[in-house]
Amino acid sequence: MSQKVGLVGIGKIARDQHIPAIAGSEEFELAATASRNAGVDGVAGYGSLAELLEAEPDVGCISLCTPPQVRYADARAALEAGRHVMLEKPPGATLSEVHDLQALAAHKGVTLFASWHSRMAAAVLPARAWLSQRDVTAIRVSWREDVRQWHPGQDWVWQAGGLGVFDPGINALSVLTAIMPRAIHLAEATLDFPENRDTPVAADLTFRDPLGAEVTARFDWLHEGPPEWDIHIEAGESALLSHGGARFSVAGEEIAGGEDREYPGLYARFAELIAAGESEVDLSPLTHVADAFTLGQRRRAAPFHW
Amino acid sequence: MSQKVGLVGIGKIARDQHIPAIAGSEEFELAATASRNAGVDGVAGYGSLAELLEAEPDVGCISLCTPPQVRYADARAALEAGRHVMLEKPPGATLSEVHDLQALAAHKGVTLFASWHSRMAAAVLPARAWLSQRDVTAIRVSWREDVRQWHPGQDWVWQAGGLGVFDPGINALSVLTAIMPRAIHLAEATLDFPENRDTPVAADLTFRDPLGAEVTARFDWLHEGPPEWDIHIEAGESALLSHGGARFSVAGEEIAGGEDREYPGLYARFAELIAAGESEVDLSPLTHVADAFTLGQRRRAAPFHW
Repeated sequence: MSQKVGLVGIGKIARDQHIPAIAGSEEFELAATASRNAGVDGVAGYGSLAELLEAEPDVGCISLCTPPQVRYADARAALEAGRHVMLEKPPGATLSEVHDLQALAAHKGVTLFASWHSRMAAAVLPARAWLSQRDVTAIRVSWREDVRQWHPGQDWVWQAGGLGVFDPGINALSVLTAIMPRAIHLAEATLDFPENRDTPVAADLTFRDPLGAEVTARFDWLHEGPPEWDIHIEAGESALLSHGGARFSVAGEEIAGGEDREYPGLYARFAELIAAGESEVDLSPLTHVADAFTLGQRRRAAPFHW
Repeated sequence: MSQKVGLVGIGKIARDQHIPAIAGSEEFELAATASRNAGVDGVAGYGSLAELLEAEPDVGCISLCTPPQVRYADARAALEAGRHVMLEKPPGATLSEVHDLQALAAHKGVTLFASWHSRMAAAVLPARAWLSQRDVTAIRVSWREDVRQWHPGQDWVWQAGGLGVFDPGINALSVLTAIMPRAIHLAEATLDFPENRDTPVAADLTFRDPLGAEVTARFDWLHEGPPEWDIHIEAGESALLSHGGARFSVAGEEIAGGEDREYPGLYARFAELIAAGESEVDLSPLTHVADAFTLGQRRRAAPFHW
């Protein structure tokens, strides 16, 4: 039996990913949307989440894909109304607000799912299993893409709280933290801020691993041409987790891979959590981002214009 | 019976606070120091913590007052060597590294105490008790001091990871989070970075309170004259927690206050935790700081010179 889900924030990610994933899901049906200036044909549309919650008491699940700067108020309202909530990544603009939502979800007895879509990429679990059997000595993350292609005209990414290049970079960190056999933490960072923007366009991170592996990451948002979403691994053999986690090769030979099922995977996980009466909120990717902003050296970069 | 403590980092805060507090403590005796270029007369001095740990197996407790950027490696080494550890504030340069230390302390079965000295100020507990009985509607934190007086020549405060004005500001946040009856979180922030420095010299913070109180904070490091370490509270009556938490007045009348016993209070708490076999690591003040760096709008300010 499928559950009714309300989708909040009908923008690029909703149309590209959430709506098709819900349409293909046996667990959910899209019953309502809330968005200031867009809707979905054939689905009840509201101008705000408050209106949706009031008018649709049977919509038991709310999926939020609004920008992180405004997500908290909606998440809180949905939890207060006793609905299960799934959050797009990053789960909020601050760590503290997500702690607050966690406490509220526990208090209300509903599910809160802070989703990390890249962790659902086809080769992430195989890579994790491979790494768990080996001594990793080095990891080099290279996450380069063209902001003009992937966030066309989306000014919120450049506004304070929009994370800038950490918006894609947090995908890399969600994969890195999923495949690493142990916790690492940031030791040094450099962040390049365009002089007319509030968030960085590039970042270099150096992590400290208690067991001594060299772990670095380079995020670049001005990379033209096809994106490079790669994690290079040294662990006796050389391995590469590429295409954002979709393909895994060892010594040049592909040993795992598959089609893109990230968002279907997220909704399946959301359904599992609801059925089990559990929440899943892993803040480690956002914590690394907050650490980078806190610890990082700021450099001024050329102004950015669309 | 007093326990032997080793003090790491013999700088201003060690001489001003830790050494007198240990000298006046019945629970601890200063048995050794580690510092690159200073020692304490009559106490075994080592050039590094590694040497101290090797030479002094009976020193069961280590207190770290080195700058946050270098504290992790020492904390890890001390915990690995099975010693109890007390951390000056802030407990680290990143949240993730403190999570790592927490896990290590639990694994080794020793105490980790992330200290917040301002929480030990004489009027903090009375203010907390007063607030817990009332509906707070507004809190305005004003934390202004002269960096040249309180951190003379300490360049680490201006280096990435040194937190800048959040070094004193985190004291305010440690008090705010101790007296507030509920969790709040940052909604907006503005950070002023001197153009020749990596950390901010001033900050304005606006918090969101789930119950609607207006909570703001202003940190200023170029305030000349006597410091202003005040928290103004509206809760039916007007109250003021001033002098960094040492005095509390309601409607202009002082109802709590006392002499400065912050560091003696910390060492007493460290002893309690060791006796109970517990750790105490509340990261909420550092989380608010990380949130401010992540969410905050950056403004350029005039260069800072000592």
